Amino acid sequence: MAETLVENEQQPAQEYDYHPMWKSLGMNVEDHDMLLGAVGQMYGDMFLTQSNRPKATSYLDFVASNIHSGRIREMLDKKESGEATKIVGSFCLYVPEEVVTAAGGIAVSLCSGADWATDKVEEHLPRNTCPLIKSFTGFKLGHVCPYIESSDLVVGENTCDGKKKAYEYFSTLANMYIVDIPNVHNDATVEVWKGEVKKLAHKIEEFCGQPITAESLAEAIRIANDKRRALQRLSATRAADPAPISGLDSLLTVQAALMDDPVRLTGAVNDMAAECEARVAVGEGVVPKGTKRILYTGTPMAVPNWKFFNIIEKAGGIVVGEESCTGSRYYRDLVDESGTTVDQMLDAIAERYFKISCAVFTPNDQRMADIVNMARDLHADGIIDCSLQFCTLYETEAFTVEKAAEEAGIPFMHVTTDYANEDAGQLTTRVEAFLETI
Amino acid sequence: MAETLVENEQQPAQEYDYHPMWKSLGMNVEDHDMLLGAVGQMYGDMFLTQSNRPKATSYLDFVASNIHSGRIREMLDKKESGEATKIVGSFCLYVPEEVVTAAGGIAVSLCSGADWATDKVEEHLPRNTCPLIKSFTGFKLGHVCPYIESSDLVVGENTCDGKKKAYEYFSTLANMYIVDIPNVHNDATVEVWKGEVKKLAHKIEEFCGQPITAESLAEAIRIANDKRRALQRLSATRAADPAPISGLDSLLTVQAALMDDPVRLTGAVNDMAAECEARVAVGEGVVPKGTKRILYTGTPMAVPNWKFFNIIEKAGGIVVGEESCTGSRYYRDLVDESGTTVDQMLDAIAERYFKISCAVFTPNDQRMADIVNMARDLHADGIIDCSLQFCTLYETEAFTVEKAAEEAGIPFMHVTTDYANEDAGQLTTRVEAFLETI
Repeated sequence: MAETLVENEQQPAQEYDYHPMWKSLGMNVEDHDMLLGAVGQMYGDMFLTQSNRPKATSYLDFVASNIHSGRIREMLDKKESGEATKIVGSFCLYVPEEVVTAAGGIAVSLCSGADWATDKVEEHLPRNTCPLIKSFTGFKLGHVCPYIESSDLVVGENTCDGKKKAYEYFSTLANMYIVDIPNVHNDATVEVWKGEVKKLAHKIEEFCGQPITAESLAEAIRIANDKRRALQRLSATRAADPAPISGLDSLLTVQAALMDDPVRLTGAVNDMAAECEARVAVGEGVVPKGTKRILYTGTPMAVPNWKFFNIIEKAGGIVVGEESCTGSRYYRDLVDESGTTVDQMLDAIAERYFKISCAVFTPNDQRMADIVNMARDLHADGIIDCSLQFCTLYETEAFTVEKAAEEAGIPFMHVTTDYANEDAGQLTTRVEAFLETI
Repeated sequence: MAETLVENEQQPAQEYDYHPMWKSLGMNVEDHDMLLGAVGQMYGDMFLTQSNRPKATSYLDFVASNIHSGRIREMLDKKESGEATKIVGSFCLYVPEEVVTAAGGIAVSLCSGADWATDKVEEHLPRNTCPLIKSFTGFKLGHVCPYIESSDLVVGENTCDGKKKAYEYFSTLANMYIVDIPNVHNDATVEVWKGEVKKLAHKIEEFCGQPITAESLAEAIRIANDKRRALQRLSATRAADPAPISGLDSLLTVQAALMDDPVRLTGAVNDMAAECEARVAVGEGVVPKGTKRILYTGTPMAVPNWKFFNIIEKAGGIVVGEESCTGSRYYRDLVDESGTTVDQMLDAIAERYFKISCAVFTPNDQRMADIVNMARDLHADGIIDCSLQFCTLYETEAFTVEKAAEEAGIPFMHVTTDYANEDAGQLTTRVEAFLETI
């Protein structure tokens, strides 16, 4: 399937003029052109300069060129034809996509990976706000995210202080519904969370005007689980030395999973996984055997935030796993498929999502165990933990991750960064030094 | 009652040597002497330079000199004699003191108002952590807070990201129990909160080894309510022009209420209130009539954080109210006293505490209404909203406060500050400019 789409992509983009569509969404098309130009340039510099990529990563090139254009048109067409009910955007893995899919909706993640309209943002949010939050606010204020502009509903979630309070402002700009997330994992809070998932399901089916049935929900669970299984399969191949695929391409694969059509994505990821399995079988890698292997842990990296993976891999390392929301937290756990009623299935969904070990939880011991296990399973030589600037949760938890890594005897480095390029040189130096010591 | 104690105070402090007590608590007495010296100097410069203070503020001078010495000995003596069971410390208004008092315990707030051992703190917490959190961690690491060292149990609370995650580390240094606080105010979360209060009560009576009875809880509620009534009475006098008491002395009164014996405090505050009422009756003020009146809103100011109030009042303004945790949030609401069973009373306690409009809640509309009402009731000429640096919650909510003030036609200024003195000159300039415009 991916093959076909990549062929489509090979038709020059100029054949389609997406400007009328963007305009109809109320976007600032001049600024958006500028943004696309910059991202395209960055994609070329970071991704297309990699050598020996798996051929099936051509799907990623397709996604990169299609994500603000063809994918949006596809979603809008589906809505117009009645194939889809609504487009529902979100900013967090804690918003269950199954619930949206089951009501005939299209679940997408919203833009939050680049600085935009920062001056305007700082009229409404503190300067000391994490770049991800500033980004989605800036994308909205600057009207340059077709996902935000095409979303009929945005589902926020009370996770960190920054998002929780920023949503109060964002909800004055977009139609929002907020899901409440507990602070602690225990028997009582999982019940509260199940209640939240059910309230959300009720809200979504009402909003989409289509009931969530046992059939539609089972199908939605299967679609999301298939996607997760494909991502797990791809991830497993990265335990090999040499690694068959780069961290950059793996990161983009999860980023694509948050935005592209799930069935198409699943097909393409299975293609990549099959090719990587074949590579592993013959000892072929994207880098030489013995390249220093890094487990990335920390804050998520939304499209087009590829900066730090690019730095690590251009510095001569290879990222073999991502313990992050744009990584294993997205695909590691499946929803139990044995439920037969909507209620059972919503409980199963809630239980699955409750396992996502976001640093918003306290204590967050399971995350420490996960990190150490991932490092061992993927034969990482070291852990690089990264927080977005002003992310109190991951910045503070970094000290706990460091302790866990030390106790497990795994070399560890923490960095704090943002979306700007000012620290690229300094980060490169630090990464190079770390790679030399491990 | 305060009179007697002030007389005690007038006996030279040298008569008692508290060093053996501090040593027995494991404190670093040399560093602590240094701290006391610095705070004493600051107290002299800020408080004793005020003219025309109400005579009854001599209680505050007593508290300032007694708080790390006589008050600690008193608590330890009470424990030794069996009059008190345990000392239970906390960092937040959301920890109900009534529950501790009812189990024979002494509830105290812990030191968090000055920079201490910052280098050591930054080995465990991010540099970009708010000064209040760094402070209590530093006081613990430096062994200079007799409240922390004498607390048998520290009750933390999941409010902001910073505290929530910092407690994970702090709990490795002190015996801790954590109360979970919801993100939203609604019918479901108040029930969850009632459950948390009951769990805490169970924990406290078990830990103190003394059951909470209907009698002891009713008495504890009365003691805390009496304190709040006295503080309300004092606060009400500040609506007069000229204001009978300074913001600095009013702030210290609430700070004292968080640490001193509640019955003694109540007596002293009623003395102050009576004197202020008499002043108001004859039109006597601590400043001239017409002095520009400021409502302070924002983050709490723990002892000895008097910096910003000192700046406002030395610049020629008068603070007439504090919408903060070291202000009205502490005393505005009473616990309903009509309950007759422990369960009813715990529910009443939970309901009262749930009204505290901390910025951790979303949305936090009630706080906006409170601020505008306070500004009107106290005839404030302007609002100065202040956040401690890196306090995402209050920093973000400041934009909402600004909007509410604008809509109400009340001049508004926001400042961000910390515990250092580097910005004192700049703050003074900004405050002077603000006072000129209103």
